[in-house]
Amino acid sequence: MPEINNPFDGSRVLADLNALRAIGTYKTGVHRPTFSEPHVHSLHWLAQRLPEAGLTATIDGIGNVLGTSAKAGSKLLAGSHLESQNHAGWLDGPLGVIYALEAARVLNSDPSVNGAVEVAAWCDEEGHFGHFLGSRSYVGAVTDAEIDAARDRGSDRTMRQALRDAGLADRPRLQAEPRRHIGYLEAHIEQGDTLESGDLKIGVVTSIVGIWQYRITFTGAQNHAGTTRMAIRRDAGLALARFCVAIDDSFPALCGPRTVWTTGRITLDPGAPSIIPGRAEMLFQIRDDDPAMIARLEEHLRRLAADVTAQGPCGVEVERIRTGAPAMMNGAFQDAIEAVSTAVAGGRSVRMPSGAGHDAQILATIMPAAMLFVPSIGGISHHWSENTEDADIVTGAQVFVETCRRLLTQ
Amino acid sequence: MPEINNPFDGSRVLADLNALRAIGTYKTGVHRPTFSEPHVHSLHWLAQRLPEAGLTATIDGIGNVLGTSAKAGSKLLAGSHLESQNHAGWLDGPLGVIYALEAARVLNSDPSVNGAVEVAAWCDEEGHFGHFLGSRSYVGAVTDAEIDAARDRGSDRTMRQALRDAGLADRPRLQAEPRRHIGYLEAHIEQGDTLESGDLKIGVVTSIVGIWQYRITFTGAQNHAGTTRMAIRRDAGLALARFCVAIDDSFPALCGPRTVWTTGRITLDPGAPSIIPGRAEMLFQIRDDDPAMIARLEEHLRRLAADVTAQGPCGVEVERIRTGAPAMMNGAFQDAIEAVSTAVAGGRSVRMPSGAGHDAQILATIMPAAMLFVPSIGGISHHWSENTEDADIVTGAQVFVETCRRLLTQ
Repeated sequence: MPEINNPFDGSRVLADLNALRAIGTYKTGVHRPTFSEPHVHSLHWLAQRLPEAGLTATIDGIGNVLGTSAKAGSKLLAGSHLESQNHAGWLDGPLGVIYALEAARVLNSDPSVNGAVEVAAWCDEEGHFGHFLGSRSYVGAVTDAEIDAARDRGSDRTMRQALRDAGLADRPRLQAEPRRHIGYLEAHIEQGDTLESGDLKIGVVTSIVGIWQYRITFTGAQNHAGTTRMAIRRDAGLALARFCVAIDDSFPALCGPRTVWTTGRITLDPGAPSIIPGRAEMLFQIRDDDPAMIARLEEHLRRLAADVTAQGPCGVEVERIRTGAPAMMNGAFQDAIEAVSTAVAGGRSVRMPSGAGHDAQILATIMPAAMLFVPSIGGISHHWSENTEDADIVTGAQVFVETCRRLLTQ
Repeated sequence: MPEINNPFDGSRVLADLNALRAIGTYKTGVHRPTFSEPHVHSLHWLAQRLPEAGLTATIDGIGNVLGTSAKAGSKLLAGSHLESQNHAGWLDGPLGVIYALEAARVLNSDPSVNGAVEVAAWCDEEGHFGHFLGSRSYVGAVTDAEIDAARDRGSDRTMRQALRDAGLADRPRLQAEPRRHIGYLEAHIEQGDTLESGDLKIGVVTSIVGIWQYRITFTGAQNHAGTTRMAIRRDAGLALARFCVAIDDSFPALCGPRTVWTTGRITLDPGAPSIIPGRAEMLFQIRDDDPAMIARLEEHLRRLAADVTAQGPCGVEVERIRTGAPAMMNGAFQDAIEAVSTAVAGGRSVRMPSGAGHDAQILATIMPAAMLFVPSIGGISHHWSENTEDADIVTGAQVFVETCRRLLTQ
């Protein structure tokens, strides 16, 4: 067996992740929103690292970084994203990019591997400007008109202006070459506590759950909060509160073991202390990897709304505003991750769906795709205190690199 | 008995109210926020009417319009306000001003009345810039520093700038002359449905209820709405919804017959569809004319909060941010209104507290004060569709004028 001239190095993985943490540091995390100065800096940082892995780096016209290999044999695509949520954690995104970089460093320099890992950092997975714009552009699902219309939800800067400011405006957008890759592999922190609470090291992602989102609107009668007797009120805010409680009381008996539901925003209209709200609105979300389960819960939601409307005094309207299809992860890839976990991580792995969205769900539309998770301390994410034990980061990297090897050599 | 040279004229009352409705018309109501162009116009309109009633008009340095009489004998102060809530009704305020004007026209020209009605339009009762600024200025309870700090809650224009724009910046603020008035009388639409539902024509106000206001804050843990299992969530928004329902379920057994309570505003933090709210806040208000009742309800509220905190998973904090003392209306004045209602309105009156705040509660701090209500169609107020039957407006005016006569001549 020929010698690997660039063997796996866990400390190099940690050093690279810390180098990225130094670009846009916020407390122990980072503030690196899409096309901010630190984000653009991080794209160039990665592009400069890619030659170490025998890759030719390109930053394309939507801010994706792609490292391509001239090595013969199979190509496996691997990566994640470099931008962060606002004032968020250091690992959400970078972990998967650096794992891919390490896999490329190790395997592309190994003459026994007839193939190469190619590295991608997809732009704007965190959705500052849109919805998976980078990976969707790569699979051919983003039009120029969509980019024309995109604006930063924070600053309102247009995406076109942001691309000009980053010096990327005149570059072409790279698209996937048909049949170039045998598939896509992405690593990510779990962002939940399933691994930690089970003392597990690797999550083998079975699917990325679909998100169904609803606008639920309550209509009552706006009136004076001092002069309107309780008996004749039609308080839309109170109807909303009762509806939230009814959902929470009835969903557990109907849902699956991993179903989650969330009311993330409530608005009372007009929202003044001395006015009974005549209208109220909630944004409600359900996630599950089984569309039949979602359909059952949606039916129940609409029945609850019809019952409340029938009983009065307020009307309820349920409007679905986002319909997500779950993305299934490739079975052979899952088997490979699990087998490597047995060899490298003492079998401390579990198959689990991903409750969060990831670029892998976009890549899965054009090639076999899979993901692995590493533990999140306390299950915390989208917060600067997000973290993973160094030892768990290294174990995850090792599983990732060996899985890539298996996929390229099997 | 000498002849009245300017007898009561119901059609004149309706014509004046419609003239005011033409200043800042919005649908069948008005949009006449404090110091808007239509509002300033309405102040001048009133100042020009006052001489018809033998009054000398002044618009003072805070936008109050005052009509003073040189006639011998007792002086009764009467009035209300001319500005409106945004896109609101035509009668909330103007009704009391025009009733006062009509009383002054009739009684100040009547040689058998040894005294006069003086007319006031108090600025900003609707609270665009502050809290009863006009009437509080008149009773000596507003400092220059409070005016310096006041801003329009709609446009953010400072009150000083608004006064300059209205040409009132250099005028002095008029203050009550001690012992000048035997008292204050104000008419208003009920803004509720007590009179209409009881087929009554006059509400004899016994007190203006106090308003106690609370900020209730729920603390949970912000987390990812996709990756955080239901079992470990600490959802502050859900805790808030359950608390609203608990209030609504338990207050009816404890409260008085006229107690009202309202959650007018709800805020979830951060308020994003994919994030479990870690913090939630509601503005909650209780109104009653009995402070002991409020104390009992507040104690219950704090007990509910302590129970929720003890049971988890979220903490609840109750903070009182406004403490209102009810204002009692003068008993002899109430008797006079009731006696006149018997004579003029077939006794179709009822004694009732006012659930809304009015300038009378401010005047009551320095002189005997009283109020009468006329019916509101459907109980609607603070909405452009607010209305009262013409016949009820005229009946109310007649009761008002005759009550003023009795108070001045008794």
